[in-house]
This record gives sequence, structure tokens and C-alpha cells, in this order.
Amino acid sequence: MVTRTRLSQVLRAPSRRIGAIGSASIAPRMSISPVRCLATSAPKLLARSPAVQHLAKLTSETYPGLKRDDKFATLTADDVAHFKQLLGGEHAVIDGAKAAAEDDLKPFNEDWMHKYRGQSRLVLKPASTDEVSQILKYCNERKLAVVPQGGNTGLVGGSVPIFDEIIINMSRMNQIHSFDDVSGSLVLDAGVILEVADQYLAERGYIFPLDLGAKGSCQVGGNVATNAGGLRLLRYGSLHGNVLGMEAVLPDGTVMNDLCALRKNNTGYDLKQLFIGGEGTLGIITKLVIQCPQRSSAVNVAFFGLESYEKAQLAFREAKKQLGEILSAFELMDSRSQEIVHQIKGEDRPLEGEHPFYCLIETSGSNGDHDYEKLEKFLEDVLTKEIVIDGVVAQGESQAKALWSWRESITECIGHGGGVYKYDVSIPLAEMYTLVEDVKARMGELGLIGETEEHPVSAVVGYGHMGDSNLHLNVAVRRYDAKVEQALEPFVYEWIAKRNGSISAEHGLGLAKKKFVQYSRNDTVIGLMKQIKNLYDPNGIMNPYKYI
Amino acid sequence: MVTRTRLSQVLRAPSRRIGAIGSASIAPRMSISPVRCLATSAPKLLARSPAVQHLAKLTSETYPGLKRDDKFATLTADDVAHFKQLLGGEHAVIDGAKAAAEDDLKPFNEDWMHKYRGQSRLVLKPASTDEVSQILKYCNERKLAVVPQGGNTGLVGGSVPIFDEIIINMSRMNQIHSFDDVSGSLVLDAGVILEVADQYLAERGYIFPLDLGAKGSCQVGGNVATNAGGLRLLRYGSLHGNVLGMEAVLPDGTVMNDLCALRKNNTGYDLKQLFIGGEGTLGIITKLVIQCPQRSSAVNVAFFGLESYEKAQLAFREAKKQLGEILSAFELMDSRSQEIVHQIKGEDRPLEGEHPFYCLIETSGSNGDHDYEKLEKFLEDVLTKEIVIDGVVAQGESQAKALWSWRESITECIGHGGGVYKYDVSIPLAEMYTLVEDVKARMGELGLIGETEEHPVSAVVGYGHMGDSNLHLNVAVRRYDAKVEQALEPFVYEWIAKRNGSISAEHGLGLAKKKFVQYSRNDTVIGLMKQIKNLYDPNGIMNPYKYI
Repeated sequence: MVTRTRLSQVLRAPSRRIGAIGSASIAPRMSISPVRCLATSAPKLLARSPAVQHLAKLTSETYPGLKRDDKFATLTADDVAHFKQLLGGEHAVIDGAKAAAEDDLKPFNEDWMHKYRGQSRLVLKPASTDEVSQILKYCNERKLAVVPQGGNTGLVGGSVPIFDEIIINMSRMNQIHSFDDVSGSLVLDAGVILEVADQYLAERGYIFPLDLGAKGSCQVGGNVATNAGGLRLLRYGSLHGNVLGMEAVLPDGTVMNDLCALRKNNTGYDLKQLFIGGEGTLGIITKLVIQCPQRSSAVNVAFFGLESYEKAQLAFREAKKQLGEILSAFELMDSRSQEIVHQIKGEDRPLEGEHPFYCLIETSGSNGDHDYEKLEKFLEDVLTKEIVIDGVVAQGESQAKALWSWRESITECIGHGGGVYKYDVSIPLAEMYTLVEDVKARMGELGLIGETEEHPVSAVVGYGHMGDSNLHLNVAVRRYDAKVEQALEPFVYEWIAKRNGSISAEHGLGLAKKKFVQYSRNDTVIGLMKQIKNLYDPNGIMNPYKYI
Repeated sequence: MVTRTRLSQVLRAPSRRIGAIGSASIAPRMSISPVRCLATSAPKLLARSPAVQHLAKLTSETYPGLKRDDKFATLTADDVAHFKQLLGGEHAVIDGAKAAAEDDLKPFNEDWMHKYRGQSRLVLKPASTDEVSQILKYCNERKLAVVPQGGNTGLVGGSVPIFDEIIINMSRMNQIHSFDDVSGSLVLDAGVILEVADQYLAERGYIFPLDLGAKGSCQVGGNVATNAGGLRLLRYGSLHGNVLGMEAVLPDGTVMNDLCALRKNNTGYDLKQLFIGGEGTLGIITKLVIQCPQRSSAVNVAFFGLESYEKAQLAFREAKKQLGEILSAFELMDSRSQEIVHQIKGEDRPLEGEHPFYCLIETSGSNGDHDYEKLEKFLEDVLTKEIVIDGVVAQGESQAKALWSWRESITECIGHGGGVYKYDVSIPLAEMYTLVEDVKARMGELGLIGETEEHPVSAVVGYGHMGDSNLHLNVAVRRYDAKVEQALEPFVYEWIAKRNGSISAEHGLGLAKKKFVQYSRNDTVIGLMKQIKNLYDPNGIMNPYKYI
């Protein structure tokens, strides 16, 4: 067993770098798999949920209430011939009418969680804005429904068809056009993979202002279309501020060119904002200009234990105050989440003792020594004030990654016991964790949770991006049980609506949350949204059956 | 004469704080008027421009091509009686029909530069969202045109009527409703004065993510309606990222309540974004939720000279790289601007020698010692690399304010010689200063610029927020001359359009730039904007004759 030094002792020692405490204890004991650089295939760190199967059911069977809208035309051989001519052959058009084509279509028709499966017979892969424009113009005139598709890494079924919608896959529009290394503005195609863009920027000392687990597969156009939040929002803000310019194609083929690369441009309505988070229901984003910040040369990670959620809030407040401009992440984990990771991974925990709550802090700055000093002072302060009970600081990049890996593996480990009901929501910070407690209490009252097999629910777990008031409520189940679902919904949504929270913090509405949008938006706002949809897409061909 | 120490010598001295060099030279020699905390009346630091008179001409006379639209109804005694009943008497309604009422209406009809003057007979001052809603519903049904008005500090004539539009002044909606000192979200009325909001936040260790010269008079609702940029954009980003929630009243009286206080909310189109920079043409913003960052405890200011614009770009690049997260301003000034300030103020310059360009850098961070060390290292580096020729660092708050005052007084000093043609524009950084050179060359070729009285133009000056690619091109004239105007327009706008710049970086379109919008937006985008306007305001009653 490795000797362990308490943070309180270390902080009193003369060593300037408290990170030294981590070097003996963390590195050899935790798996040091890279975090936030997941495989270039689809992201894997996700739980098996009750609806997940390895061969997805057709969405039309999972949602029997959904019916194909008769206003849409049915694909003909003439249509396929037209598209083949337009896009130039086999590479651009996969025709489900051919024998053995079913397998070719499968990855486009199905989401990566195997939760949603559509029945499209045609995938189009345009290579230019003009091709996107011609495709949409044709589809709009013919009333052929379409689904825009980026990396297909979403969680709410927004990027796959329900019925026979034509899939417009953006992967061939993957060029980085230019980068201004004085202003930091990056011009690139919508189909560029996020990690490719970030790597391009890393070589130039810059960083993409967005980071998320699926970075190896997701495309920047899809990120913007779903207004992805991710890990860097606390530091760099949302895409509504970081997207400087956009080119998008409207359903009638009109190209909206607003590729402004300037931070200040006050000349009329900022229409591109409607496409940020529009989930492909107004048009297809084809190019983007992104404001990219300088990459921080120094990154530090600390992990600590706390005795209550109130203390976690105090720690967050102090971190914002004392770490200020270098704070880049503040993550919360409850004790149950840590027990599960410990059990499933069979590895020692970052801290020896057990605590009701844990936080992970990341700092990113331009001067490693300064940042260490600030972090040290902060930790000494929260320890002295008894806000924090115990903690470690990663020494070096591999230990930092190990701590991040521990945090990120919660999602994967929770799924090992059967299935998980997952809610990714925003709640005002003061009450954020109360949702977990209330759901746990409700499961207890209804006799649904327990240690033994007769109880469907094995655990109610809470963790998430505390810096963004973004909670991941996970209800781990031994098996699918309608009683659990009935106990959860609409209970969870009503609970959130009462606190003016958001039922979808990060993943959008898609198909999964379409019917719950009224818990986060009132009828007036929903009505105004529908006006916008009708204005831009009067035939309703863009990503139908979803969103609002 | 005060002895002066060159930065190069100071940097080699053992003193840890290079700021010491400033203490002897700057403080006693520069006026230490507070910067960025201008008077609580209208902002004063602005030039007399050719169109400025102390009794403004009626806008309808200045723009004889503009005609009152007959589709709008004319105010009747019944209308006035209705509003008096609704808002409760004299305090809420100023009725121009009464004798001696002309003077009461003047400050509402006229902009603070005395450049635009409307002919409204009625000012309404609602005190609640419901009152705003009832006013607009009535006006929309009666087809009475209206102008929303905040602090009336704009530069483009957007907040005053042209003809007899009813003025809806928001100053009575001035409550701060709540502040969450953990998340930093502030809920307040649209009519709260920016400085009042910032002071409220300062007492709680937070800062409003927007700062501008007119902070003592402007209202946050107007700031958002005009998408104000200002001094903190480089650090905190634009209002598109910092406005978390909004309540606005549409022309038909519908209240759009989207007062979300969360950083992550992905549930449908982000409609509030259309009102950010919408200049009151879609509705009236009544309440806001703003994401406020922690206030930095340490602020440092440095001022230095450079031999070329290329070196200024290099300095900016290095500042971003080395100062990273603490850089909060990077301002550019050319030599002509400094000559003028020196002549008019009769004070010594911050630096002894003369240089082709000058930059002012501000850092804001949580640890003064760390920030000084970074700044010292940066300055040593740019001096060693001969990017910078000379420089001083302010020692203490009053010197920092003095340097800011020197920078900010450019605008005022340029106006002393007669008038100024002012262009506040965005241009990609590499070519930003070329506009000043090209305009100067054009004035020379046309024989319009010279030292003697027969030349109308006395100077072509460039300065601005380099960190945001935001140039202030000022053409100082001895007298108004149509030849100068013809030489400038559309030359300047065409020049900017060729480089994909923006003809309005900060101040919006209003009346002043309505007819030039096509230089920054293509016909397709302008057409789409008009669609949005028609959707929300089919009767066109909101702020007519302006914007697009």
C-alpha cells in the first residue's frame, strides 16, 4: 500500500509545489487512459440505457405514435438519378435500392447508441456549398424531407431519420480554409471534425473554444447546430459568443453568407444565432468562422473531498474569487458515483477517505508557477476554513489526465449494472443537488430502490459541471421497469420547471425531448419558435418530427 | 523638467516593479481626470462634428428625402387621454399639446450630440412590463409609430423620433431584482443605468461584462438593444454570450418571457438573440439576466511606443501569448492623434520621444504580483526583440487612470479644430491601419489636406480598440466642405466592404447608417432581415425610418 500524505500536512511543508503529494499516490494506482481525447470513432464513455440494444429497434416502432407525414413525397428512381448526376456517382450517393446496400446505409440511419433507427434509402454527401444548395432546392420543390447529419454523435436522435428522410451527410465538407494568427479567427467547413480543428489550432498556439468527449467524431457544424456546451464553456463562454460568422443554406437553396470574421459587427439582426442550437431545422450550416483563444501553456488539476453540497458551493465561490481568470473547470461528484467507479474499475480512489462530495478543479494559465501558487493558496485557504476536508493535486500531465479519467469514467461505470435513466439538466446552483436527493427519496417511498434484486433501481447518482449549473442525474437500474419511468417522468421535468431550470442543458431537443419542451419554455415562446420555423421552412422538409 | 528613465534601463535594474518608472514622470504631468467613469449626465468626450449644432436642426430638414409614412395614425386627444389613464397622470405622460410643454419634450426629442431632432408630442414612461405591453398593443392597433428610448446616448440617431413617433422612455423601469453571488447571474430591469448596475456588482466582488464611456447615462436595455461593445469585449466577449435571459414586449403586446438565468439551456431557437442589436425595431426589452464575471482585484496599465503598424501587430500577438488570460485591453493610437492631444491639452506626453505608433495595454487579474511579473517579462521581451521602442507602466490607480485619460481624450481633442468626420469600423487586423493611410493619401491627391487655412482637412487620424479589430477613423476638418464628404463616402464604405469589414463596429445602424448597410451585408442577408422585421412588426410601428 502506498503511503499517503494528507493535503493539510503537505500544505504546511516548505515545498512550494503541493502537486508533489500526488506523484506517489495517484500515478501508479489509477488507470492513465487519456481523457478528453477519446477515440476517433464514436465516443464510448456512455452507459447502456434501458432503450439501448445492439441492433436498434426502428424508431417508428419505439414511438408508435409517430406517423410519416403524407405531405412529403416518396423518393423515386428519377430523384436518385438526379442526385447521382449532381454529386457525381457512387461516392456521393448511396442508393438503398441496390442489392446489399442495406449495410452501407446502416451507420447513417442509426445513432451510435443504437437507440434510434431510421429507414432512409438515400444518403447524399455534398462536397460544396453549391451542392448543398442544389440538393435542398430540389428537395424543397419536390417536398422530399431531409435530415442534416454531422458526426452523428448526438444523444437525442436529432441526426438520424425517423422514416425515409434523405440524409445529407456533411463529412466531405471538411476543409480548414484559413486562420488569422493575430486575431484568432478560424474559417472552416461545417464537416471538419472538432479534434482535427483543435489539433490544427494547437500547432499554432491556439485552442478551439469548445471541447467534449466526442471530439474525435463530432463535426463543428453539428456542434454549432446543437449549441454544444462541453468542458470549456466555464472559461470561454458559449458558441453564441464564439461563432463570429456563418454560411448556411436555407431549405429553398438560398445561401446565407454571413462569414464575418470580426468581433464587432453591428449591422442588423444577428440571424446566424437562430442556427446555433437550431438542430438543422432551419437550414444546413456549411461554413463557420470561430473566435479562438490562445492555448494555455500551464494546466493544473486538483481533486478534493467535502462534507456537504453547501461546502461544495462555498468551494466554488472561493475558486471563482481566488483563481479568477485561470479557473477552467469545476466538476462535482457525489459519494455514490465514486463508490461505483471504485467498484467497477477495481482501482484505489484518488483520496483515501470517503466523503459525501468530491470536486475536481482545473486551472489553465500562461504561467505554471503563478498558477501553482494561486492554487496552493486557494487550497490552503479552503482547508483552513474547513470548506474542504482532503485533497490532492496532480503532478504533471499524466496525473492530471488520470484525475480527469476518474471523473469521466463515472458515466461508463454506472452503466455496468444494467441500464441508466440519464438526465442532463441545468438547475440554479443553490438547489442543483436537491434534485438527486428528491429523486432518491421518491424511489425509496415507492419501494423501487434497494440493495437486493427485487428492487429495479440500484442507485441514484449526481455529478456534473458545477461551474455551469449543469447536473447529470443518473438513475441506475438492474432492469427496465415501467414503474421507474413513471416515477421519474414527468416528476423530474416538473421539478426542474418549478425552479426555472432547463430540461436540456447540453444535448438539445431532437426527438427525445420534443414532447417535453414546455417544461423549459412557455407557450408564448414556443409559439414564436414555430413562427420562425414556418418562416424559414414553410414546407417543413428540414429534420421533421423533431425539435419543437 | 522631470528626469525620465527609459524602459530599457528600468528593466535592467533590480527593481521588481517596473511601474516605478512611471511614478515620477506621469503623475504630476498628466491630468488625472477619471476615465471610464464619465459624468452621470450625457457623455462629454465627443467631438463637434460638422452636423453638430447646439440647437439641432430637425432631422426631417437634415434628411429632406425622408417623408412621414401616411400609414401611421396621428395622435389624437383621445389617445393622450387613454395613456394618461393607463399610466397615471402627469408623471408618466408629457403632453406636447399643453402650453410651455415644448421644453419638457426637448431632451426626449433630441440626441445628446444635437445632431438629430424629432417632433414627438408625447413621451410615455411605463413603470412595468404590463404597462409596456398595454402601450404597444394600443399603438399597434391604432397604427401609432413608436420609438423605444433608453439613456439616449447613441451616436446614430436610433433613440429619437424623426417625425411624430411616440417616445417610450424606459427610465422608470430601473430596479435590480436579484443577484446570485455563486453563479454571477444578475436580473434587472432594462432601464437600469449601466454604472448603477456595475456599482451594485462592485460591492459584491463582481463586474458588469460591458463598459463604455457613457456608462453614467446609458441603460442596460439600450446597451443590449444596440449590442454595445465597449472596453471589456476583448476580455469578456460580446453580449450575445453574456445575456442569459430576456423579457421583451412585442409590437402586438405579447410578452416574450425568456428570463432564464442558466448558462446552458438547449431547448429551441434562441430568439432573444434577435433583440440583441435589434435597435428596438422588433419590440422593447423590459428585463434582462446577465452573466457577470468576478471583478479582478489587480489592474495594471502600460503605455509604449512602436516604429510601425507591423510592430504593433507583433506586440498584440505577443501580448495575447504572454499575458493570455490577464490581458483586458489593447489600444492603438497613431502619432498624429498624440500630437493633437499634446497640443490641445498642453501637457507632456506619457513618453518623451515621438513614435509612429503607441499602444496602451491593460491587464486585470486576481493577483497583482503575478500580473506585474507577467507584464514585466512581456515588456522586457518585446523591448529585447525591438518590437517596442520605449514604454512606461503606471504605478497605482491614479496613474493608470491618467494613461487611460490620455488615450480617451483623443476624441475630444480632435474636435477642437472645427469638425470631425467619424467612422467607427471593424477591419481585419492586418489591413486595419491601411484605411487611415489610404484616406490620407486620397485627401492629399485631391488637395483637400494641408497645414494652411485653404485646405478643409487638417488631419486624418487613426486609433481604436486593436484587440477587437475596431478602428476609429477620424478626419478632422477646419470647416464643413461637401468636397470632403464626397471624397470620403462611399470611398470609406467601399474600402471596408472590399475587406469584409463592418461599417458599424459598435454603434449600430440607426438612421445614420441605414442607407449604407449593403456595404456590410449582402442583399440575401438584408432580405432575410426584412423577413424577420415583417414577421414581428407587420404594421412597422417599431422605430420606423431606421435600421434596415
